[in-house]
Amino acid sequence: MKEDSWFKEFHDKSFYIAFRRNKLLKKIKSEYQEIEVFENEFWGKVLIIDGLVMLTEKDELFYHEAIAHPPLFVHCCPEKVLIIGGGDGGTLREVLKHNVKRVDLVEIDREVINVAKEFFPSLATSFSDKRANIITEDGIKYLKDTENIYDVIIVDSSEPFGPSSVLFTDEFYSLMRDKTSEDGVISSQLGSFIFHKNFIKKFFVNVKNLFNSSSLYKGITPTYPGGIWVYGIFSKRNSVKNVKWNNKLPLSYYNELIYKGSLFEDI
Amino acid sequence: MKEDSWFKEFHDKSFYIAFRRNKLLKKIKSEYQEIEVFENEFWGKVLIIDGLVMLTEKDELFYHEAIAHPPLFVHCCPEKVLIIGGGDGGTLREVLKHNVKRVDLVEIDREVINVAKEFFPSLATSFSDKRANIITEDGIKYLKDTENIYDVIIVDSSEPFGPSSVLFTDEFYSLMRDKTSEDGVISSQLGSFIFHKNFIKKFFVNVKNLFNSSSLYKGITPTYPGGIWVYGIFSKRNSVKNVKWNNKLPLSYYNELIYKGSLFEDI
Repeated sequence: MKEDSWFKEFHDKSFYIAFRRNKLLKKIKSEYQEIEVFENEFWGKVLIIDGLVMLTEKDELFYHEAIAHPPLFVHCCPEKVLIIGGGDGGTLREVLKHNVKRVDLVEIDREVINVAKEFFPSLATSFSDKRANIITEDGIKYLKDTENIYDVIIVDSSEPFGPSSVLFTDEFYSLMRDKTSEDGVISSQLGSFIFHKNFIKKFFVNVKNLFNSSSLYKGITPTYPGGIWVYGIFSKRNSVKNVKWNNKLPLSYYNELIYKGSLFEDI
Repeated sequence: MKEDSWFKEFHDKSFYIAFRRNKLLKKIKSEYQEIEVFENEFWGKVLIIDGLVMLTEKDELFYHEAIAHPPLFVHCCPEKVLIIGGGDGGTLREVLKHNVKRVDLVEIDREVINVAKEFFPSLATSFSDKRANIITEDGIKYLKDTENIYDVIIVDSSEPFGPSSVLFTDEFYSLMRDKTSEDGVISSQLGSFIFHKNFIKKFFVNVKNLFNSSSLYKGITPTYPGGIWVYGIFSKRNSVKNVKWNNKLPLSYYNELIYKGSLFEDI
């Protein structure tokens, strides 16, 4: 097997992880990004966007549980939820485990949704739920134009460079604040606890005071850089520490104690 | 720079991580194992034993906090502690943060201690604490021969093959039970939550009933396989869930909520 049958992701110029492409399943260039899917013997199917691992079948639950459930439990009883990005369907699947009435998912890239439907049915099954409404549009444009007001918004974007960079600005967080209800809650993926600390700190200092209660929190992500991912949580009324967790909802990895124990404000 | 200036650790035949050896600092073969130390631009100095990453300067705290503090807090007020293995000094450093009277560290390989003293002073500084007593001997032989009784034993071994395989048997856990006080508590490192589940399950089923209260628990370990490590905790009297955590003890990553939220008995 040739060297180029390994997919390598450099987390630093002196450190990388490598997955064997046991079978290349898809490689396309969409209007926005390069999308690749391959089969890896250990991790299952792997989704790569612009050279970065977005998910593997084996470990996607870690990320999706951590980004989705905390904002929903901080709110307590959300009815209308918006997901920005998240075109693979994993975050949507987690949100739909709650007693929500409607979930709008706004993904800019239709090809991500198509690839999820073709290769990741355990995530994309969520698209066919009656409460789910899939919109292929730019997230910021959608938010500016919509008259909808959401209880919870989850920003499940790609990395903060290229098309997603605008999703890490205070303008975008002000816009989300305006489009959420009085007790609205927002969560977002921010980056690696090990590799992206300076970026996350700068971002958080910039947006935290737009909300009554804001914090960062951590979750395990085996195939993301450094194994620990940082999420932001922002609440217009309730404290992000006073979470109304429903322990009857069966999750695989994330839980109330881990969420509370992982909250931090300084990085 | 040639390909062989990268250190690669395969976690599966289809997945590995790679560190650039920016500077090779030491490579020796001791009586027991091959020991290598190199400088990596991102992770700092890296200690490799028999081809596996034992620690990096940047992330060693995650592992050492997780293995050391839970058993000490489950016990509540340990005075005499034994560390089996742990020749790098990191676990000893964490134990000495508690109000203990004496810590015996039994490391089979004198060269590990020497390497720690030469290259990892922030860990090896613990060796010079007056309460610490360093013994270079086989852990099982020491335990069989000693008349000491310990409040807490921490098994900070290498992987369960080669010289350390005997440290994963019920005979060894029976021996530790006999050499601990009535309310004795034991912790041990067991392997990757992602890669070694079957081994850990078999081990745990085999030893858990030797103690009144037993569990597995998890901790983040960025440079260990899969980013999540499993530890065992075994208590002769107190429940391993009823931990008397002292929140005034400053830890960097591990805490009471994360410990409690990470406990699990099935794998």
